[in-house]
Amino acid sequence: MMKQGLSEESGLLLDLYELTMAQGYWRAKKHEQFASFDLFVRQLPRNRGYLINAGLEDILDYIENLSFSSQDIAYLKKQDLFTDDFLNYLSKFKFSGDIWAMPEGEVFFANEPIIRTTANIIEAQILESFFLNTVNLQSMIATKASRVVLAAGGRKVFDFSLRRTHGKDAALKVARSSYIAGFAGTSNVLAGKIYGIPVVGTMAHSYVMCFKKESDSFASYAECFPNNTTLLVDTYDTKKGIEAAIKVGLKLKEQGNQLLGVRLDSGNLVAQSKMARKMLDKAGLSSVKIFASGNLDEYKIYELLKKGTKIDNFGVGTKMGVSLDAPFLDVIYKISEVTDRQGNFLPTMKLSQAKTTLPGRKQVYRVYDSRGKFIRDILALEGEKTDGLPLLKEVVRKGKIIYTKPILNKIREFAQDSLSALGEKYKRLVRPAAYPVVVSRQLKRLARHLTSEVKKRQVL
Amino acid sequence: MMKQGLSEESGLLLDLYELTMAQGYWRAKKHEQFASFDLFVRQLPRNRGYLINAGLEDILDYIENLSFSSQDIAYLKKQDLFTDDFLNYLSKFKFSGDIWAMPEGEVFFANEPIIRTTANIIEAQILESFFLNTVNLQSMIATKASRVVLAAGGRKVFDFSLRRTHGKDAALKVARSSYIAGFAGTSNVLAGKIYGIPVVGTMAHSYVMCFKKESDSFASYAECFPNNTTLLVDTYDTKKGIEAAIKVGLKLKEQGNQLLGVRLDSGNLVAQSKMARKMLDKAGLSSVKIFASGNLDEYKIYELLKKGTKIDNFGVGTKMGVSLDAPFLDVIYKISEVTDRQGNFLPTMKLSQAKTTLPGRKQVYRVYDSRGKFIRDILALEGEKTDGLPLLKEVVRKGKIIYTKPILNKIREFAQDSLSALGEKYKRLVRPAAYPVVVSRQLKRLARHLTSEVKKRQVL
Repeated sequence: MMKQGLSEESGLLLDLYELTMAQGYWRAKKHEQFASFDLFVRQLPRNRGYLINAGLEDILDYIENLSFSSQDIAYLKKQDLFTDDFLNYLSKFKFSGDIWAMPEGEVFFANEPIIRTTANIIEAQILESFFLNTVNLQSMIATKASRVVLAAGGRKVFDFSLRRTHGKDAALKVARSSYIAGFAGTSNVLAGKIYGIPVVGTMAHSYVMCFKKESDSFASYAECFPNNTTLLVDTYDTKKGIEAAIKVGLKLKEQGNQLLGVRLDSGNLVAQSKMARKMLDKAGLSSVKIFASGNLDEYKIYELLKKGTKIDNFGVGTKMGVSLDAPFLDVIYKISEVTDRQGNFLPTMKLSQAKTTLPGRKQVYRVYDSRGKFIRDILALEGEKTDGLPLLKEVVRKGKIIYTKPILNKIREFAQDSLSALGEKYKRLVRPAAYPVVVSRQLKRLARHLTSEVKKRQVL
Repeated sequence: MMKQGLSEESGLLLDLYELTMAQGYWRAKKHEQFASFDLFVRQLPRNRGYLINAGLEDILDYIENLSFSSQDIAYLKKQDLFTDDFLNYLSKFKFSGDIWAMPEGEVFFANEPIIRTTANIIEAQILESFFLNTVNLQSMIATKASRVVLAAGGRKVFDFSLRRTHGKDAALKVARSSYIAGFAGTSNVLAGKIYGIPVVGTMAHSYVMCFKKESDSFASYAECFPNNTTLLVDTYDTKKGIEAAIKVGLKLKEQGNQLLGVRLDSGNLVAQSKMARKMLDKAGLSSVKIFASGNLDEYKIYELLKKGTKIDNFGVGTKMGVSLDAPFLDVIYKISEVTDRQGNFLPTMKLSQAKTTLPGRKQVYRVYDSRGKFIRDILALEGEKTDGLPLLKEVVRKGKIIYTKPILNKIREFAQDSLSALGEKYKRLVRPAAYPVVVSRQLKRLARHLTSEVKKRQVL
């Protein structure tokens, strides 16, 4: 058993200001007031026409387990910021509010709340850091990976990113999020164990280099895995590597087994894959697959396929695992309403330059055409009569999880279904069309009204 | 106590091929042979003239704890890839080799081994995924953060990235790595608790919006933290926000306390900071600091300071926390020698197109001038007589950690010292000069000799 430095099981994974504000609220008795917060993405990254929602499972686990241990409290006490009565409150902290959220795998767009929290204001606020961190990583990766899957046009794609993801947690979440988006498996064994994702692996250059001859390394590996061998053929000279792999393939065939594939990891993948295909076919090994890896992403795969590459399977690492062209989402968590002393919810909004938010408790409605394609979304106030089907589902009621978490393969299917109902022009890899998200009439009216109201709050 | 989904304590955080290769080695009795592997960065990212080493502490913890639990073994058994005798070997796995490494905080360059492992080939290989993942994240962030510190020219810089780092592990490691690089603190409370890093926090826009008037929110917060209040002044109109903050500042002063600062989070930070400074000074509050956050990185901070901004402290989030302009390092782990059946170490190298590696067990020597600045590094074979001081230290001997891990503040000081001994031209934010790393004569000769040797290994 390996202890991976994870003494980190603590409610303290949050920004300090969540706690100082909480004490401010506590002292001002604001925690008797309730508030709603929306979590949403302000703007889609460049070249993104849609996003894929992921992270809800971790959000719900967090809600279920969030608390502050006696060590946490002792640490906070040492900071000389907090009063004993507030720390006593924190030591008994348990989330008791309501949460509505979009299911994992759902397609969503800018400005649409994907999580909506309604709770006493301390409880609602304190979730912010973890919620943002979780949705940022997992939706970013699910989206990036879904673009890779689209570019591969039905060919299998595997997650090879473990060595370059930002840490251990990211390695696991990237494997899970990319699987949701349609990846066929991962090289990350722990992700396989935890999430039940199929695991794959071939060999490294070092394996080939540990044997006197390349052909010895191939033979030894094939003996070990007679029906599960993919040979890395580019350690020295690719053509000779393929020749050596063919010898192994023929020998396995003789024995009634089968060479799975050859792997290319460098050089001109178009030319090399064509050469490999020709050589393999000529040797009667047309069932042997060609596997490619090395600096791949959706742009590169699209280009390779356009040039007629003969690659069957792609191993995609770094560029997917860090979402290289968009390594963060502009995801934020903003207050939209707060109750007055009488308990009435009053919508609120932020007016900072270029950062204005929409007020009130909202729902996202999706409008479909007769073929089941969705054609626009509507941001409306909850309860407002409007077209479309609501996307936010109730997942937590009075602190209790009331949502049955789907198994991972169901989430994966749901993501495929959602994405296939989205028009092609929104899925273009570059310069996708902007999907229409409209603001309902009532919500517009409320925002207009509040703009003048809110300005009054600054009168000194 | 919060369970953060961390049932992930397992030796299985690795790429499957590490294990399939291990079984290949096992079956071919290669684990009686020893090998050396170098971990290094192939190429510096754009605009990087140097890198800062970080991650060794986690590497050593990993070495100390690496093992495979009975559940791990049971999972592997189900994969139908591994033989019982190999799984039995794995269940008793314990690293027993040698590791040399550069200390955390050391400045390093492309092609320099920062970790060198010598062990039986299975043990040396199996470390690859974790080593790469760890060094990639932590050195990438330490480097990025050190650029931010340089740009801020003595002003304080704080890590605000928790909400946008790639997961929980990254959040902690970013706080630690940026602190090593000279950041003054973090907003991440858990990182504060685990690593003893100073924690800081102000307030969010939502706090201001929860009160009827902006001034009420300021007054309530200041009452709570009479000597630790920084007021966010841009929720509605920044000028009015500053006026409200001044009232609070004057009241605190009357009471013998002190307003710490005002925070700007949007808009034109140059103009707003100048306005804030003027207004605060005029009110007799010249000790109140101006704190800025929002889309900051080294480029933006450099530009702000060039334009005469009056900001005293910077909160730096996303762009540092994901290393936006270079979100991965081209870090690799390559075999450099392997013993023959008689136990003699034979250097080896990879000849793939554009991915050629250097053979043999190496040491990195740093050559200093008379003023203590370092002027070039030399990659040499271990034991080779050459100029300079060796950078790789012995940290693990026969599986035992023999290195005393320095405390974090010592690492931080060491990083400052190392960086101050590096010439200015290598530290430019854009287009830094290329620091000279030269290959020793013996190492060159060996590489030349081996190139022809290694090609023979492919003869079928």
